[in-house]
Amino acid sequence: MSSNHFLERQHKLAQILAANQLDALALNPGPNLTHLTGLNFHLMERPVVAVFRPGAEVLLILPELEQAKLAQLPFKLQAFPYSEDRAAWPKAFRQAVEVGGLDGKRVGVIGRRLRVLELRFLEEAAPQAEFISAEAELAELRMKKDASEITSMRQAAHCAQNALTAALTELQIGMTEREFASELVIQLLRHGSDPHLPFAPIVASGPNSANPHATPTDRKFAEGEVLLIDWGANIDGYFSDITRTFAMGEVDAQMRQIAKIVADANAAGREAARAGIPTGEVDRATRAIISQAGHGERFIHRTGHGLGREGHEEPYISAGNEQILQVGMTFTIEPGIYIPQVGGVRGGGVRIEDDVVITPEGCESLTDLPRELIEISPRNAVPRRNRVPGAEVSKP
Amino acid sequence: MSSNHFLERQHKLAQILAANQLDALALNPGPNLTHLTGLNFHLMERPVVAVFRPGAEVLLILPELEQAKLAQLPFKLQAFPYSEDRAAWPKAFRQAVEVGGLDGKRVGVIGRRLRVLELRFLEEAAPQAEFISAEAELAELRMKKDASEITSMRQAAHCAQNALTAALTELQIGMTEREFASELVIQLLRHGSDPHLPFAPIVASGPNSANPHATPTDRKFAEGEVLLIDWGANIDGYFSDITRTFAMGEVDAQMRQIAKIVADANAAGREAARAGIPTGEVDRATRAIISQAGHGERFIHRTGHGLGREGHEEPYISAGNEQILQVGMTFTIEPGIYIPQVGGVRGGGVRIEDDVVITPEGCESLTDLPRELIEISPRNAVPRRNRVPGAEVSKP
Repeated sequence: MSSNHFLERQHKLAQILAANQLDALALNPGPNLTHLTGLNFHLMERPVVAVFRPGAEVLLILPELEQAKLAQLPFKLQAFPYSEDRAAWPKAFRQAVEVGGLDGKRVGVIGRRLRVLELRFLEEAAPQAEFISAEAELAELRMKKDASEITSMRQAAHCAQNALTAALTELQIGMTEREFASELVIQLLRHGSDPHLPFAPIVASGPNSANPHATPTDRKFAEGEVLLIDWGANIDGYFSDITRTFAMGEVDAQMRQIAKIVADANAAGREAARAGIPTGEVDRATRAIISQAGHGERFIHRTGHGLGREGHEEPYISAGNEQILQVGMTFTIEPGIYIPQVGGVRGGGVRIEDDVVITPEGCESLTDLPRELIEISPRNAVPRRNRVPGAEVSKP
Repeated sequence: MSSNHFLERQHKLAQILAANQLDALALNPGPNLTHLTGLNFHLMERPVVAVFRPGAEVLLILPELEQAKLAQLPFKLQAFPYSEDRAAWPKAFRQAVEVGGLDGKRVGVIGRRLRVLELRFLEEAAPQAEFISAEAELAELRMKKDASEITSMRQAAHCAQNALTAALTELQIGMTEREFASELVIQLLRHGSDPHLPFAPIVASGPNSANPHATPTDRKFAEGEVLLIDWGANIDGYFSDITRTFAMGEVDAQMRQIAKIVADANAAGREAARAGIPTGEVDRATRAIISQAGHGERFIHRTGHGLGREGHEEPYISAGNEQILQVGMTFTIEPGIYIPQVGGVRGGGVRIEDDVVITPEGCESLTDLPRELIEISPRNAVPRRNRVPGAEVSKP
């Protein structure tokens, strides 16, 4: 990452702030701070806040013990370090507010990242300032990826696919969801993912697959059930986020039918996505297939979400969203059908999720594991190597 | 976890709220919500907020697609689900505020967890309510661990120690910090840690060890340097957090001297810790050793922090903290000395961190890997098995 990268991004931010009548942006540690400065901090009980103002040096309030991270920064920054004595923290905020002339100003914040902890320190130091959640406005900063960012995302997609392919060779009937989730994480790391995974994998078997955000349990894999896996890798801070659904042996006709519908919906979404249309049209394309098949009420979430430095970011692919797709935008397409376990109904879900990038030609999927319901042989306990999904797309 | 556990904890919360003149507590997903309800949600762009009121049922605002998690809850809860249409979200908050009679009330929040996202929805729905950061007051809820919690923490300590012992057998001169960090995470998972690690391991070699919160880099391990490793495991939602510092071959006299001072300071802290004294006294005990040795200004952080469901929680072990230690409190003792790389000074740091619990007899360390600076033989590339620290304390 050249120093120009950070200065270019800070310059782009300045334009966004000006266009939205914001005097400054206050960020706590997270993807935006890393994007703009290369700095990483754990999100802890000690507040860290960076303030960006058009054409002025960056201000950074931080614990003294984090100062080592500021060596050799390729841009100008004024630090306001505070000691371990909590009583001294407000003073560091007051000094930064004074140097930055922030009181009485319109200061943008990222509401889904900034905590009440940092907000209260800022409010106390700048009681006349207005702190405005500016997610939508600031999304412009990272929504369109450049070539180097797309390269990282492509690597994150390959890493995740290869990791699953490797993990599936360890899959056995009788293994628990938790055990397989651990094996998958191990393979993600072995295949080069940063240990800061985008999210802990979802491994949901049988009726658990009817819960879109299931957490792996001690439930054991059993023959005749579906297995839904939602996982991703992190390469250089950029994420992949994939879902595939498998059949452990022969599953019932309803699940097979649903899997076919979801695969068709996924394809319709990838076909619809192109520059110049609202994201809502991609949602409409996937939803139309599922609704026509009579399962509209069982597709209980939006079609997808932006993907990059965050697991969920703009653009959101949801009904009625008027955000226009542009070349370089990256997001998931992940239709699903979920049948709850009620009474005699066994229950189960199917979701198929790809990571795509808008290109001048349309939409390219960075993920290419087979999308049909692939049967993993339960008789062998371990799936036959030549039936492992994705083995054919495994790359070094 | 029996249902009584959750009800007991909710009852304890009610007492804390009453004692602090708070009418309710509003929580977003995180350790407190899990402690009180067993519920887990990813922290995302869709707000999830639970409201607890003494003697009344729990209120929960959440996305419709998360409702499957509410099946078979062992306590009374009223859900306010909202759809994927963002315009509908404020209504769910308004309904919950109305049912809970929250407007105009004093509502506690955890400022280091609640985001501006959730706060703004709450403020809009209850414009006359006061949202009060009540970290210190609410800390009572989880600060003293019961026997089952301490068992989990003990397992998390053993898991982490055994994982490091295994990872060290793979350590080689020329390996990068990042590579070893991945290997360590793999071993944490193989040894049974939940994939939601407390934090990504710190693996800091040579001058990088002078940064207490270093992030693993592509720097290669070299002979004659120190290697500082800070890592932890998660067992059933409870964490360990350990630091040990190693010598890769023969390090210079200054680093050896510093390592001895830090080990003495760590021992002094463990000796000082007991029920009935302020946490500040534990900090004073470690700091006295380091200051007497002339390195007071190089011990740039507090002595430790509470540990449990969070990597950092109450009680904080810092100078002047008057919080009285009580039986069942769990925290780290982690003195360190950091010499920055400046001019001709090579730079490096040593930290030794243990996880302790206050007992009726004093203080028990859950972690017991050797604390001296252990030399890892660089000539063999792989350390000799019988010199691997902790091999002797490895437990099944």
